[in-house]
Amino acid sequence: MKQVNLGFLGCGNIGGGVYRLLQEMQEELLRRDSIKVSVTRILVKDIDEALQINAAKGLDVPRALLTEHVEDITSDPTISIVCEFMGGEQPAASFMEQALAAGKHVVTANKVALALNWARLQRTAEEQHVGLWYEASVGGVIPIIRVLNVNLESDQIDRVFGIINGTTNYILTRMASEGKDYAEVLADAQRLGLAEPNPATDVEGMDAAYKLSILASLAFHGRVTYDKVYREGITAISAADIAFGKEMGYTLKLLGIAKKQGNTVETRVHPTFLPKDHPLANVDGSLNAIFVHGKYCRDMMLQGRGAGDMPTASAICGDIVEAALSDKVHYPTFDNTDTPAPDFVFTDDWITRAYIRLSAVDAPGVLARVSESFAAEQVSIASMIQKEAEEGARVPMIMITHPAPEQAIRRALARLAEDECTVEQMIRVED
Amino acid sequence: MKQVNLGFLGCGNIGGGVYRLLQEMQEELLRRDSIKVSVTRILVKDIDEALQINAAKGLDVPRALLTEHVEDITSDPTISIVCEFMGGEQPAASFMEQALAAGKHVVTANKVALALNWARLQRTAEEQHVGLWYEASVGGVIPIIRVLNVNLESDQIDRVFGIINGTTNYILTRMASEGKDYAEVLADAQRLGLAEPNPATDVEGMDAAYKLSILASLAFHGRVTYDKVYREGITAISAADIAFGKEMGYTLKLLGIAKKQGNTVETRVHPTFLPKDHPLANVDGSLNAIFVHGKYCRDMMLQGRGAGDMPTASAICGDIVEAALSDKVHYPTFDNTDTPAPDFVFTDDWITRAYIRLSAVDAPGVLARVSESFAAEQVSIASMIQKEAEEGARVPMIMITHPAPEQAIRRALARLAEDECTVEQMIRVED
Repeated sequence: MKQVNLGFLGCGNIGGGVYRLLQEMQEELLRRDSIKVSVTRILVKDIDEALQINAAKGLDVPRALLTEHVEDITSDPTISIVCEFMGGEQPAASFMEQALAAGKHVVTANKVALALNWARLQRTAEEQHVGLWYEASVGGVIPIIRVLNVNLESDQIDRVFGIINGTTNYILTRMASEGKDYAEVLADAQRLGLAEPNPATDVEGMDAAYKLSILASLAFHGRVTYDKVYREGITAISAADIAFGKEMGYTLKLLGIAKKQGNTVETRVHPTFLPKDHPLANVDGSLNAIFVHGKYCRDMMLQGRGAGDMPTASAICGDIVEAALSDKVHYPTFDNTDTPAPDFVFTDDWITRAYIRLSAVDAPGVLARVSESFAAEQVSIASMIQKEAEEGARVPMIMITHPAPEQAIRRALARLAEDECTVEQMIRVED
Repeated sequence: MKQVNLGFLGCGNIGGGVYRLLQEMQEELLRRDSIKVSVTRILVKDIDEALQINAAKGLDVPRALLTEHVEDITSDPTISIVCEFMGGEQPAASFMEQALAAGKHVVTANKVALALNWARLQRTAEEQHVGLWYEASVGGVIPIIRVLNVNLESDQIDRVFGIINGTTNYILTRMASEGKDYAEVLADAQRLGLAEPNPATDVEGMDAAYKLSILASLAFHGRVTYDKVYREGITAISAADIAFGKEMGYTLKLLGIAKKQGNTVETRVHPTFLPKDHPLANVDGSLNAIFVHGKYCRDMMLQGRGAGDMPTASAICGDIVEAALSDKVHYPTFDNTDTPAPDFVFTDDWITRAYIRLSAVDAPGVLARVSESFAAEQVSIASMIQKEAEEGARVPMIMITHPAPEQAIRRALARLAEDECTVEQMIRVED
């Protein structure tokens, strides 16, 4: 039997879930793996406040475990694994670095801290011969990190894409099923605790972009930094766009998409229309799903709970057990730097189809001039809907293009004469 | 840089794929993981024959690598990892045991040899402090072994089920799309090399049952031996059943199903009707897909290529790289014995719905008596189709039951008077 002592940095929803899981499974883990896993110290901001919150949640954490000083964990020689549940970049990243520097394994689900401080954290871990584990940082319980790091280590991945943010998926799912507008559903999600009071990180796509930078770095074996991820959120999506898309057979999802062809890399997070029978089109609510395509493995799809305290806790505890059983860190690492991989060519001119909603004056020749603008940039229109309007009002004109370079589509839109035709929306379409 | 020498036992389709992948990726693996992986010895039955076969496949394996003596691999101190590609239980199992006993890591995709010899192989590996790796033994490239062994090690899995045999999935997919009968599609699959000349292992469900015994053992952390898996193949499936099922909204798949409730365990491989919008209903051809449900992780689905030389090679090479990088074997093991877990209660009275096809005489009162037989066993009928027949001929009567104990359904069928009503088919239905 091996005693394994954990220190927690923070103990919110996820931390509380991990604490609960480890309590419930302590005997079973002893039986399964001959390890006794105990949480021996928990860093909180304010002990009295933490006790109140835990009591309200029905989580029985003894006061003696709580501390307000990170050194009580990083300097405790009996603690071998530090689990970080603080969220946000700082002080989480520097606390993790302190723990690694003190020779402790670190387990985290913190995609922000990881995406922005990976090189320093990994370097410190390597110097100290300890491990940095982050399975739960992307896709919750979906095993994508270990799949990329271990299962597909000898493959050549050229594509990773999927639904990797639960909040936006929840909002888009409800907008589609209820026909409501973004602001209304967001307010409701906030009321239900499913969106943050300040929802920017989720709804503006930052959370998905942090995750995509992690996935792309692992998949392509070279650093794809956060700033290399093109990003558009869902704040400009209207109920009308979702309805028009539905009419044309498409469902809207916020996707993270990473592709590599030769050395050219594209990474982008944006609302995306998918054919309504696409496997991702039916991944609703807090479910996440990730596709991987590689030269040898071909296509693979992984689907599971991307959020929720207990699913995330399950993934984190998988890391904890592996860290507890590993004398040596076996995670393959890629060339880990703070700068984008020098041999990658990052492009913003990917090939895509686009849904475009225009608002045009109802006059002869407008449609012809719109068509000419697209034709001039070699962008071909696959389908189109034009709605009748009230006398004198502008008419909505919706079109979906064939695949074309992103920049050509943008140039075509820039050609439109503003006085007779305004671009209301452009949403990319994947098949 | 670490030099890693591999010995291959056999070099057929899969072995050839692994050889090719490692050649193509040798430089990249050196860059990624600082390991140089070389195949230095290959056991074949007949060197001249092997050279001919490799030449026909365009696989350039030097004659000097080939041997007809397993000792040339097991006694070679420069070989640290032995990869088994022979298939079948023996001599594969005893050769693997020899390799482990000689202190070499073993990587295999051989579900038969593993399912029937696991305890001895695992014990030998543990005694020698080497690893036994088998990610590709179930579901090809689907990462189910590592997910159960590592990611979900601290969860409580109560359900694993899915499509885990490519040959039967190919046959059923074609039977459904072309309306052809089993024998005709099988003959065609054999002609195309997609089914073995002796197809019993696949079509009678043995292959899926070996795999399910492995999955259930890992998921439930106790030994579920092959003989504890209930098994029905697809040989008795007719085009008519597939057509009737389709009429009622169902698609037929051969599923492996493992469930655990308390200590009661059910493991079964049989043809299964699924609602046509079930995610598994659209997993066609050589695709495999596996569902997992656990107390903490909730539901997860993994989908990918279950067969094919290169996808399988990708999974095997993931194992090879992990074995090469691990000084210590970190795979959690369960209590590994040759006998079924003593605290498991294996049941054959699971709750299921059933599709039943009867052939009844066209006479007054028959339907009433059939209904009474089911009612007497508390089995309730959810839907029913009765077809008109030629004057005097027997009529097909198709019904789908509500969920009921398997044995109650069987007792109800046994009650039917044979002279007026014959049971032509019983196929389980899952939702």
